[in-house]
Amino acid sequence: MTTQEILQAAQTARLPLAMADTHTKNEALEAMAVALIAAQEEILAANKQDLEAARGRVSDVMLDRLALTPSRLTDMAKGMREVAALPDPVGAVLRKIVRPNGLVIEKTAVPMGVIAIIYESRPNVTSDAAALALKAGSACVLRCGRDAWASCHAIVQALRAGLRKVHLPEHAISLIEDTSHASANELMTADGLVDLLIPRGGAGLIRACVENATVPCIQTGTGICHVYVDADADLDMALRIVENAKTSRPSVCNAEEALLVHRDVAATFLPMLKKCLVDDRTAAGLTPVELHLDSAAASIIDGVPAGPADFDTEYLDYKLSVAVVDSLEDAIAHIAKHSTHHSEAIITNDKVAAQRFATCVDSAAVYINASTRFTDGGEFGLGCEMGISTQKLHARGPMGLAELCTYKYIVHGNGQTRGGAASLLQTPCH
Amino acid sequence: MTTQEILQAAQTARLPLAMADTHTKNEALEAMAVALIAAQEEILAANKQDLEAARGRVSDVMLDRLALTPSRLTDMAKGMREVAALPDPVGAVLRKIVRPNGLVIEKTAVPMGVIAIIYESRPNVTSDAAALALKAGSACVLRCGRDAWASCHAIVQALRAGLRKVHLPEHAISLIEDTSHASANELMTADGLVDLLIPRGGAGLIRACVENATVPCIQTGTGICHVYVDADADLDMALRIVENAKTSRPSVCNAEEALLVHRDVAATFLPMLKKCLVDDRTAAGLTPVELHLDSAAASIIDGVPAGPADFDTEYLDYKLSVAVVDSLEDAIAHIAKHSTHHSEAIITNDKVAAQRFATCVDSAAVYINASTRFTDGGEFGLGCEMGISTQKLHARGPMGLAELCTYKYIVHGNGQTRGGAASLLQTPCH
Repeated sequence: MTTQEILQAAQTARLPLAMADTHTKNEALEAMAVALIAAQEEILAANKQDLEAARGRVSDVMLDRLALTPSRLTDMAKGMREVAALPDPVGAVLRKIVRPNGLVIEKTAVPMGVIAIIYESRPNVTSDAAALALKAGSACVLRCGRDAWASCHAIVQALRAGLRKVHLPEHAISLIEDTSHASANELMTADGLVDLLIPRGGAGLIRACVENATVPCIQTGTGICHVYVDADADLDMALRIVENAKTSRPSVCNAEEALLVHRDVAATFLPMLKKCLVDDRTAAGLTPVELHLDSAAASIIDGVPAGPADFDTEYLDYKLSVAVVDSLEDAIAHIAKHSTHHSEAIITNDKVAAQRFATCVDSAAVYINASTRFTDGGEFGLGCEMGISTQKLHARGPMGLAELCTYKYIVHGNGQTRGGAASLLQTPCH
Repeated sequence: MTTQEILQAAQTARLPLAMADTHTKNEALEAMAVALIAAQEEILAANKQDLEAARGRVSDVMLDRLALTPSRLTDMAKGMREVAALPDPVGAVLRKIVRPNGLVIEKTAVPMGVIAIIYESRPNVTSDAAALALKAGSACVLRCGRDAWASCHAIVQALRAGLRKVHLPEHAISLIEDTSHASANELMTADGLVDLLIPRGGAGLIRACVENATVPCIQTGTGICHVYVDADADLDMALRIVENAKTSRPSVCNAEEALLVHRDVAATFLPMLKKCLVDDRTAAGLTPVELHLDSAAASIIDGVPAGPADFDTEYLDYKLSVAVVDSLEDAIAHIAKHSTHHSEAIITNDKVAAQRFATCVDSAAVYINASTRFTDGGEFGLGCEMGISTQKLHARGPMGLAELCTYKYIVHGNGQTRGGAASLLQTPCH
């Protein structure tokens, strides 16, 4: 099927999904989980094809992300069951207004309709995204990277078998057949057929969506996350948080990429930092963190001199940019200039400074005395997520089921009319 | 100043506005209202220039929208005081989550930053939009139609005098000096300088924004609003609602443009409709409604035959498209095809039909037994509004103060770190 045909078919699944009750959707998720495991052999065979075709063409890290195993499939099935266990966002009355004229206005959460997701060669995203969209009452149209196509296709076949079991339309979950740039552009401009487009990928994909998308789009983003160690910080706590934010999982978007240290504590803190992240890690046989230092930091500890691009780089690696700042205001200004509006933290015992930082830093999540690594749907208690939004419209931060819905006002009346030109019916005209 | 310079200056007003407390913002609104009336002479003189330049070039309706009078200025000042009386949306904790690890996560309403508004030659929009943006804690950058520029400029000068009185930065409210298409395009693509763009105007402007905007944008929309008279409708109520939705104010976006009548009641209802909207209005010396009928309706009453474009036209006039449908499903399908997702109503005593209509019709407001004319911030009890959103992302329906804000997660910790790679600090390394 062409991309247009797939989108048209997805549109036909909108109403059955919008009308499906919670029980049916949860049964579908269970049936999809069962079907995924039942199709293990076909899926692993397809994945083997993908891996063989990709070998030599992509990096080892990419190959690892592409590879499926029985244990990864079990995790994917588990993920779908976790979505089933979450509360149904559809139908929630977000606000109820009773007007003096008797109108009862219910602001009600409703499905988006058709959600398109463009992602890279990670087959597990297929079941994660499909499960979240289904529970949110929307059809999903998936467009994966070409290296994962056979794997994703086999997964979608299995998920559709699950849908059929509970008599939901199989077009509720579709995979675009074309993995060229053309199909991504088609999704970005499919006005009236795509209610929400979520690009999950690198900066290039996000930029292409911002520039070309005419359909509603949510940027899930890169994270140049900052930790600022204030003059009034507990330096032991600061070190624990910086170590955690940088080294607990450097490849993810909520990892710290830049450290700002107040001048008053730099001479004490920076040597602690270097001992912990460089010397002790080396001694323990761990990858040391490469410190990219501005000139003030470099006058206190050894490291790599920071180049002009360092503070605008998402390393996703054992690297950390370090700058000394003169004040809280300088820290806020530095963050305003370099942040991607994902997550930033201040370490301080000064409540006024903390409040000021929280007000002035314009990011999805602002932490006071905690690691940036918590920006995550599960860690926030929102359940599974579709990604982390770094934009301000609609959803900011982790996008869980609620953020995958829109709302409508359902207004119950008993004949109310509004003032304006006089009605002829005040003296009945019939 | 160039558009870029104005945007840069607006950016400098972001933080002082975000930090302004409710009392200061309300004082500013009062000072702006006072300053507007104090500057009445200058504003009316500027408006006279605008009117003289526009005369002959624009329609009488447009001239009327452009014209200011002492009484209209009083209404504008009153509008600003109404905004002052509304609750402050900024700082509201929308959700508070306490995690088992002790993190306290507050989802907090915060200002957008800089809101740009492109509008036409209606000077009153200047003070309405500026007041709403200010109360929502954002700077606003206004771009009016060229016919109203002198009037809007004089109004902005007055509003800025009010801002200075309370020591808020005057760049909190700016008017773009260039009224050519170039400045609109500059606003649409001012990435990083415009946090939200709201186009208020005709379909051409909205389309240009959808196609060209790379900054976040909310469509305020055209309304092809439907009323569906079900087989189980109270026909007297249906007639009252149809008359109100069509004739109480035909020029607004929540007026009815199309009527769908179930086949079972068409032979009874359509003659009632014609008597009320055509014959009795004519007899009363009022403009009769021109009925554009599909073939089934035309076999029952007289009217103009509906052409292919009629059901996709927002008349904003004493015209109504009328179609007979075979079923509730047909009505839902007709609306899905022709609606602009603004407001639709069903008139029925059948609760199941009402529920199905509410679920299946994909519009910002869905009415059961009430007029579409209620889709309005004031009528919904939300206070003043910036417009009616017809999109699904972020805001749907009336956009009040809450919808002009975004949110951030403010996370309070006491040193929390997240699991992952082991910390060397479990045995302190310093």
